[in-house]
This record gives sequence, C-alpha cells and structure tokens, in this order.
Amino acid sequence: MNDVHQLLRSHRSIRAFTDEPVDDATVAEIIRCGMAAATSSNIQATTVIRVRSSDTRARIAEIAGGQRHVVDAPVFVVFCADLHRPGLACASQGVTPTPGMTEQFIIATVDVALAGQNAVIAAESLGLGACYIGAVRNDPATVSALLELPDHVYPVFGLCLGRPAQNPDVKPRLPLEAVLKEERYSDAGDLVHIAAYDDTMRAYYGSRSGGTKDSSWSNEMAALVGTERRPHMRSFLAERGFELR
Amino acid sequence: MNDVHQLLRSHRSIRAFTDEPVDDATVAEIIRCGMAAATSSNIQATTVIRVRSSDTRARIAEIAGGQRHVVDAPVFVVFCADLHRPGLACASQGVTPTPGMTEQFIIATVDVALAGQNAVIAAESLGLGACYIGAVRNDPATVSALLELPDHVYPVFGLCLGRPAQNPDVKPRLPLEAVLKEERYSDAGDLVHIAAYDDTMRAYYGSRSGGTKDSSWSNEMAALVGTERRPHMRSFLAERGFELR
Repeated sequence: MNDVHQLLRSHRSIRAFTDEPVDDATVAEIIRCGMAAATSSNIQATTVIRVRSSDTRARIAEIAGGQRHVVDAPVFVVFCADLHRPGLACASQGVTPTPGMTEQFIIATVDVALAGQNAVIAAESLGLGACYIGAVRNDPATVSALLELPDHVYPVFGLCLGRPAQNPDVKPRLPLEAVLKEERYSDAGDLVHIAAYDDTMRAYYGSRSGGTKDSSWSNEMAALVGTERRPHMRSFLAERGFELR
Repeated sequence: MNDVHQLLRSHRSIRAFTDEPVDDATVAEIIRCGMAAATSSNIQATTVIRVRSSDTRARIAEIAGGQRHVVDAPVFVVFCADLHRPGLACASQGVTPTPGMTEQFIIATVDVALAGQNAVIAAESLGLGACYIGAVRNDPATVSALLELPDHVYPVFGLCLGRPAQNPDVKPRLPLEAVLKEERYSDAGDLVHIAAYDDTMRAYYGSRSGGTKDSSWSNEMAALVGTERRPHMRSFLAERGFELR
C-alpha cells in the first residue's frame, strides 16, 4: 500500500469543520484536479457552483434535512451535470442539440461523479475533509431555482470542504469477495458475506456516539431500497429537459 | 500543487499496454481503494466483474467498436451498478425491494463512478495506465448476458489496466472560468471560452498522430449531443428492472 492508497483508504465524511478558511486559489486547484478526471468523449459535463451566500446555504441546508455543515463549512459547492454547455457548442455548429436521451443522462452523471471524486481526493491530500451532500436531491427544483440552473443542468450533489474538527473512524466496507467477482456475476455466498457485514456494522454503530444506534447494513438497505426513494426525481428531470428517452 | 495533485492532473487514457502482468494482490488492492470511496447511505452499489477469458474479452472489444486494448490489457474489469445486493439485504429484513426508482438509479450510477475513479487513481499511483470503456453500453444487453448479470445490475463502464506502452499528452480541458461559477449559473462568456477552447483542441488534434484529425470541441459536441446517442439504453434498463420511475 503506497501513500496514495493510504489516503484513498482513510476517507471518512467530515461534517464538522474548524473556522480556518480555504483560500480561493486552493479551491481553484481542487476543481482543476476535478476537471482532470476522465470524461466521456471529452464532454466535460461538470459545472461547479460555489455558494458563499449564507442565505442560499441556509436554504440548501434545510432542504438537506438540516445538515448544519452546509452552512458552516468553509467551502460549499454544488456539482451539476451540465448538458447545456455542450449544447451551446453543438448549436454553434448549426446542429440542434437532443439532450434528452437516457445515455446522455448517464454520461453527464458519471462525468460529475468522476470529477467530484478527484476533487475530494485533491482536498483530502491537503488535509481537508469533505462531505458529499446527495440530499440536494431532496428538492432539486428549489436548489435549481436558487442556483438559476438552466434546462439540461441538474444538481447531482453538494460538497462541503474544510479543515476537520472531528476525527471519525473509517466506516467498514463489505468484504472484497462480495464486490469483486470472477468472469461472471454470482450471488452465491453473498448472504453469508452480508450476514458477516451486518455483524461488523452492528458493532460499528454500537461503538459510536454512545452506541445508541441499533442497526445493521441490512436494516439500512431495507430503509433505502425498500422505499420509493425521492419519487419526485423523474418528473423533476423531465421538467428540466432530461426526458430519459 | 502537491504530489497527489500532480498525479490527478497528469491523467491520460492509456490504450496500449506492455505484457507485464499485474498480480492479483495488486488488483485486489486497487478495488479495495475503489470501495473506500464515499457511497450514498453506505449502499455500496458497486460490483466489479473481472474478465480473464479471452473469448469474453474479444466479444466485449467488438461491442466497444473494436477497442483492441479490451483484449490486450493485462487486466480488464467491468464496473456494474448493483441494486441486486442491497435488494437481497432488504428482502432478508422481510421488506420487498423497490429498486425501479430514478433516484436509486442515480445513487447506484454515482456510487460506481466514485469507486471507479478511486480505482483509477490507485492504479495510476502505481505507474499503471487506465482506460474507461463506456462503450460497453453500445450493447449492454449482450454484455449483461456474457457476465450473467441479474436484474437490477447494469454495466456502467469497463476499465483496462496495465503498464503503459505509450505516453500520450494530457488532453487540455475547458478553462476553469467556464466550469466553476459563483453563486449561480450563468453562461455569459461561455461562447467565448468555448471558442478559445476550440482553438486549443484544433491545435491539440493537429499535433497528434500526424495531425490528420481536423476537429474542435464544438465539432465533437455536435456529434455527441446532436445525435440520439445509444437510443437502446432506456428500454434496456427497463428490461433489467431499472424502470426509472
């Protein structure tokens, strides 16, 4: 394991930050690292909106279920999937853009995630902490209005950055055997892996913050995959020009 | 710029590899680094299928438009978005999984991209080269059949890994000003940025491989965003249980 592997494997979400500011040049460098990630056919479908306004942050924090770190983090940005910009370039060639395809939605969403992850690693390599805020998708229409996003742009996640004021443990992951498969998919053995991981996570939750959380991975997945999660997403996307054709 | 930033900003896709093998322990470590990436609500919706079979690789290379590196790379894996595994965990709690929501599709797709990018960086930190193969989505049904993917699992991208046998330049990116915006979206100035970048890319294409490619970013975007890209994706996904409700 080299230093970079050590860095990658020590990731934890940081949700409490010191007051120490992160200067604009550092933010620019972090975003440049994001932009250096691979991008499908060089589409570069990522746009990052930096939010400094405490009013806007307070609105987004509320949308995100009261995540105070959205307000308190020295830096808060929103990573958006942007088919508007390549559409401008397309139109400049006299070609009408057709950005409503499901494939283009996948391309743009993957592009944003690759860039976001590079940005997180760039930040963590400086000793900064990061927390993705997927809960901007609790009310993506309001977030889009606040950020004045045009059609064919949607907020994929927010990102808090700053100097950590907490030192949480690294969360255990599923065993490698459950995730890396040879030649073809098989779920033989997965229930055993899941049961072992449930024990690991029960112990992990029990050891944290007074051990008041009594849960396992399977419990969490029942809440996540067994409910109609964010049912507004489809119509929201359609209204913004992502028809998912 | 620190060493990690230098690493992130020196990424280029590598499509030609030496014969030097990558041992299984190294592949395991790379995938563990992938798994260490942030994951939405700890869903860990990434499954990686390692493909060693030269027959399977040849079929996928053909699907990917004849990309020989899919066959030749010392390591070829397919990153899949997997809602089957959390569905198993959910069902073990007596709760029926409902994995057809658009939001769950986004969660799983983003999860895979975060893990993939961590894996790429882990590999590059070892001096290995990498190339994402989004073109597995040219015929995702056949790729899914080859890899025996169950419902609620889809191939997002392949990944070639190995010791580079080429040394391509880093591809220029859009200027930061086009990508990082303050407080709200605005495309004022974007056409100017795009025109400048078109010049940059025309020069870049002209300087490569005998300068036979006469194109610009806007040309490329017209081909990408102005066509009905991979129109099978929607029905493919629906057939696999991703109803995108």
